[in-house]
Amino acid sequence: MSFKLVVDSLFASPYAMSVYVALTEKGLPFSLETMDLEAGAHRRAPYRELALTGRVPALVHEGFVLTESSAVAEYLDEAFPAPQYTALYPQEIHARARARQLQAWLRSDLMPLRVERNTESVFFRPTSVPLSAEAQACADRLIAAAERLVDGANLFGRWSIADTDLAMMLQRLIVNGDPVPPRLRDYAVGQWQRPSVQRWLAHHEPN
Amino acid sequence: MSFKLVVDSLFASPYAMSVYVALTEKGLPFSLETMDLEAGAHRRAPYRELALTGRVPALVHEGFVLTESSAVAEYLDEAFPAPQYTALYPQEIHARARARQLQAWLRSDLMPLRVERNTESVFFRPTSVPLSAEAQACADRLIAAAERLVDGANLFGRWSIADTDLAMMLQRLIVNGDPVPPRLRDYAVGQWQRPSVQRWLAHHEPN
Ligand SMILES: [Ca+2]
Ligand SMILES: [Ca+2]
Ligand SMILES: [Ca+2]
Ligand SMILES: [Ca+2]
Repeated sequence: MSFKLVVDSLFASPYAMSVYVALTEKGLPFSLETMDLEAGAHRRAPYRELALTGRVPALVHEGFVLTESSAVAEYLDEAFPAPQYTALYPQEIHARARARQLQAWLRSDLMPLRVERNTESVFFRPTSVPLSAEAQACADRLIAAAERLVDGANLFGRWSIADTDLAMMLQRLIVNGDPVPPRLRDYAVGQWQRPSVQRWLAHHEPN
Repeated sequence: MSFKLVVDSLFASPYAMSVYVALTEKGLPFSLETMDLEAGAHRRAPYRELALTGRVPALVHEGFVLTESSAVAEYLDEAFPAPQYTALYPQEIHARARARQLQAWLRSDLMPLRVERNTESVFFRPTSVPLSAEAQACADRLIAAAERLVDGANLFGRWSIADTDLAMMLQRLIVNGDPVPPRLRDYAVGQWQRPSVQRWLAHHEPN
């Protein structure tokens, strides 16, 4: 098995983190390649030719190149299934659907919140700038949805990749001091303690 | 079996179309409920309580409510699998991954193109306003990706839901007179002829 994961050079992409955590939870060893997004390296050859969409992250597995973190997680779960490997998605059909719904939603909505509480503010430099009305409305929708889903350490009994993704979105508020109900805070902080997440965060520490 | 599909009242959402086509291809009978997005009906009770994310479309299947069109397609493909029902995703693992990658990409990128060539311009009123530089760059990326993927009537041999989604994105250019290579135009126009797509388009005709 040969895996290469292409991530942004700042280790700031929440989608790169999601694939990194997925590979780590699966116990699949991988090499890392970093791409300087500010310099536009992902928009030029050879990356643009390698990765269909020109976006980061990309998984390269024995010549097969795949972008879009949710598609990568599905691929890994099919190619390296439970019980031999840790499952990334719940087994029960409705829980699986809910996990996919959550992943798709977190990747395509809540943009003002994602901009005003970007992952640089989560990983490196918290901000004290108040949320705009638009971003606050996103925060309210996020919290309302999370309050309906979260009732323990994981969303669906066992951990799934949707837990890491939801915790990431909640951390945008928590780390920046925006109000989050204690139950959701405990959930997100608990998810942050997973060894796979801690291993990602260690890339942020100065050498 | 009881299915209700909640769509926008204009039948303009490309994601509502995707689920509508998926249900139709599966041969699953469903009722329609429309939601007036301009009036903000999706942001209020009872819809906001019904649908976790407050977004359209939603599938309601025997009390299970699911939003996010890609999650709905996956759910339908698991609950009503081939060969008894038409497959929405390719069977081969790499093709499945590519279909999911494409769906995820089309839902989370290319925003300037999606705004300047909205589906109202595709379904109702073509625009002659030139693309901004940003939207043109999106169009270039779309065409480059499509040229690598399209080599016949369908992306992966048999039809998949990714074909409908990619054709929708290409139609944003085609219908509005923006340049699209003939091979991609033929592909998208061919996809538009599917009975499931034509059935969706019939909702736009005046009574
Ligand atoms: Ca840089
Ligand atoms: Ca639970
Ligand atoms: Ca209306
Ligand atoms: Ca093909």
